[in-house]
Amino acid sequence: MGIKKSQFEELQKRLKSKLVQGNEVDSVAPRPFDPAAAVILGIDPSLRASGFGKIRLAGRTMKAIDYGVIECPKSWPKSRCLGAILLGMERLLAEDPPDCCVFEGLFYSQNLKTAIIMGEARGASLAAAGSRGIDSYELAPRKVKQALVGFGGAQKSAIAKMVQRLLSLDQEPMPDAADALAIAIAFAFEHSGVILHPPVRI
Amino acid sequence: MGIKKSQFEELQKRLKSKLVQGNEVDSVAPRPFDPAAAVILGIDPSLRASGFGKIRLAGRTMKAIDYGVIECPKSWPKSRCLGAILLGMERLLAEDPPDCCVFEGLFYSQNLKTAIIMGEARGASLAAAGSRGIDSYELAPRKVKQALVGFGGAQKSAIAKMVQRLLSLDQEPMPDAADALAIAIAFAFEHSGVILHPPVRI
Repeated sequence: MGIKKSQFEELQKRLKSKLVQGNEVDSVAPRPFDPAAAVILGIDPSLRASGFGKIRLAGRTMKAIDYGVIECPKSWPKSRCLGAILLGMERLLAEDPPDCCVFEGLFYSQNLKTAIIMGEARGASLAAAGSRGIDSYELAPRKVKQALVGFGGAQKSAIAKMVQRLLSLDQEPMPDAADALAIAIAFAFEHSGVILHPPVRI
Repeated sequence: MGIKKSQFEELQKRLKSKLVQGNEVDSVAPRPFDPAAAVILGIDPSLRASGFGKIRLAGRTMKAIDYGVIECPKSWPKSRCLGAILLGMERLLAEDPPDCCVFEGLFYSQNLKTAIIMGEARGASLAAAGSRGIDSYELAPRKVKQALVGFGGAQKSAIAKMVQRLLSLDQEPMPDAADALAIAIAFAFEHSGVILHPPVRI
């Protein structure tokens, strides 16, 4: 009954040092990371097209390590898409392991059915990070836009162009990948100096 | 960029033969399983207390293999809970691998925030099953109650007592575990003979 003891101990080992006291973990300063060498994974989760973007900080510059979209055809049932997201995340967490994951915060204006599907896509990615003891944070889309181009209502194409410029990419990344890279960049900005808006740990 | 080819091929291999044509996969008859030897895993997902119950069919009888609750203290951040759910599911899927997973269907009367959290918990479990190519289904709570005690509005304690009796357990299982066992039993009932209500594949 329950999770077996050995499994639980393994779980505890994998999750060691992650315990945060109390229930007031909604808004915490991220654990310090080395701004000269940190790896940050940005995620823009969705069931059919999860964007991801991994960057490495190097002093005052940053470099894209990996970015793209986990695409799942409409013909796949939901559990297969979520499985693909999980496997994709496992690769992203295993190769050049990130110091933390940063997710796009949610709009709460969606309907319930959409909200649950969005939650499921987030859950698959978050679980992958959580099972490896990697901290996850979220940043609201407006905060990401503000950090990148100084205007919370900026258009997607403006963000993609800024991402391309900041990371010296040959071409503009695909929209979902650009969003994910923007999340990682915004997080790096906020935590290399003044913290304007503490991200919400999830 | 994107998921690497080797990774994608591995994914395809793990998910092989799962492709369903078209987008009309919402309501399908489950793939046939051997009613004399099938293993069914019922899941009642929630962030802090996911119930699980695994049963093995043996002709006209059924036996509980494993059941319990994946509990996550309130002090844990969300990603850690989801990680624990994922690791718990991975153990449940590896030991006595189930032929399919059956989830409790959702109430849509919750608020958006609750719906997203519920979705995240479902997503973590669903992703684990999906990444191994195990089919997942859902059954509405009322259908589960109807199947077990003939009345969709039955109380939880009545369900737990029926679960205990059907599986010849020494004592009543914990409520969340009883719910999960009930889901697995209801699925087994429906697919050992007449299908009253085709479950929704998710």
